[in-house]
Amino acid sequence: MESGVGTAAVPRGLPYYVAFSQLLGLTVVAMTGAWLGLYRGGIAWKSALQFNVHPLCMVIGLIFLQGDALLVYRVFRNEAKRTTKVLHGLLHVFAFIIALVGLVAVFNYHKKKGYADLYSLHSWCGILVFTLYFVQWLVGFSFFLFPGASFSLRSRYRPQHIFFGATIFLLSVGTALLGLKEALLFKLGTKYSTFTPEGVLANILGLLLACFGVVVLYILTRTDWKRPSQAEEQALSMDFKTLTEGDSPSSQ
Amino acid sequence: MESGVGTAAVPRGLPYYVAFSQLLGLTVVAMTGAWLGLYRGGIAWKSALQFNVHPLCMVIGLIFLQGDALLVYRVFRNEAKRTTKVLHGLLHVFAFIIALVGLVAVFNYHKKKGYADLYSLHSWCGILVFTLYFVQWLVGFSFFLFPGASFSLRSRYRPQHIFFGATIFLLSVGTALLGLKEALLFKLGTKYSTFTPEGVLANILGLLLACFGVVVLYILTRTDWKRPSQAEEQALSMDFKTLTEGDSPSSQ
Repeated sequence: MESGVGTAAVPRGLPYYVAFSQLLGLTVVAMTGAWLGLYRGGIAWKSALQFNVHPLCMVIGLIFLQGDALLVYRVFRNEAKRTTKVLHGLLHVFAFIIALVGLVAVFNYHKKKGYADLYSLHSWCGILVFTLYFVQWLVGFSFFLFPGASFSLRSRYRPQHIFFGATIFLLSVGTALLGLKEALLFKLGTKYSTFTPEGVLANILGLLLACFGVVVLYILTRTDWKRPSQAEEQALSMDFKTLTEGDSPSSQ
Repeated sequence: MESGVGTAAVPRGLPYYVAFSQLLGLTVVAMTGAWLGLYRGGIAWKSALQFNVHPLCMVIGLIFLQGDALLVYRVFRNEAKRTTKVLHGLLHVFAFIIALVGLVAVFNYHKKKGYADLYSLHSWCGILVFTLYFVQWLVGFSFFLFPGASFSLRSRYRPQHIFFGATIFLLSVGTALLGLKEALLFKLGTKYSTFTPEGVLANILGLLLACFGVVVLYILTRTDWKRPSQAEEQALSMDFKTLTEGDSPSSQ
């Protein structure tokens, strides 16, 4: 319960929720692998199995790693702000690269098979989310890691960055569910209604994906779990408060 | 810019976002009707068209009305808290009843046709969301409208109610997208990839559903758009602040 200057106590409950989110995230990745291995013939780049690279990369990149990147500020509460920022940015870079591999895989597969591209709601949402994710990373980088932006500019952009970050993550989870559903209906068709093992496994995977999204969102939005401002930032925190909490009616 | 006691100025921007959300919400309802009318033979209770009651009721109840019920505290900023609460509760009751009709329609249709129930990811998510919605309403009613609960109990439950309310709304949007996708793939099959008018219309409807969810979430989460506490509540607001902002490490 004691907290020195610069190191605040970790809020009660937070570590359990973070552990639970990681358990869910790893289960989701393992289950996606199990689904592809057991019912879809596994994974390979140079064959018809190339399609299977797509769901696995997307779940690792745009679900698990993206979710974890959002949690960095809650988990590393007492590290220097700059270190945490760099980790946040790096996790998003890894997520982006893995998702890019997943995107190339599906376009390549479609080309080999002569299938049409970008006709489904899943693909429309996917391209939209991927573009938003890239733009958010670029804008985030220029405001927060690039040394040019002023403190007041950063403070004004910060709430937008947080809102759009959480939104893009939730849209990623939604898009994954649409893709899962598409993969099931294309292959199983009316057999889906006979409670085949693949259908049941994929339904459970879908529910766990949604759960991961909800738990990450819960950790992010608990007001008392927010990262405490540190000594290095406290000198400027008055200005920050004024800007973000909207106490000054003439701001903006 | 001036604000008297008890009536605060409406924040700049808020009315435009609320108007935009209503435009989106009404467009989504109209487009669902147009989709069912143009490509699915319209709506009737006593025929094979009974299925079509399901998507329309769900979009009106669990998307449009549920979303609007969440916005009530942002829109009616200067009404008495109790009036706003009653409106919030009533909108949720209407949403629930309309969704119940939609639920009965699909189970009835399945029974008539001899189809299996509750095998798909959409149906699992749907039943989960509907149950959570009902529980949230009951718990919300007992804490906030029933006179029994103490002020400190209400204050402790309030952040949970808000988080789960927003989460259930987002899950409703996700479930609607899964249902839309299912309806498309079952009917269009591989024709979906030829950019048929129905497919394109339904994809746009899906994107607009997601947009409605994002805009409602944006309005809800803007800190400076929150409902100001009023004279009637201000006497107790110190206690409330202590409980919700977690300043007291020994709370809970």
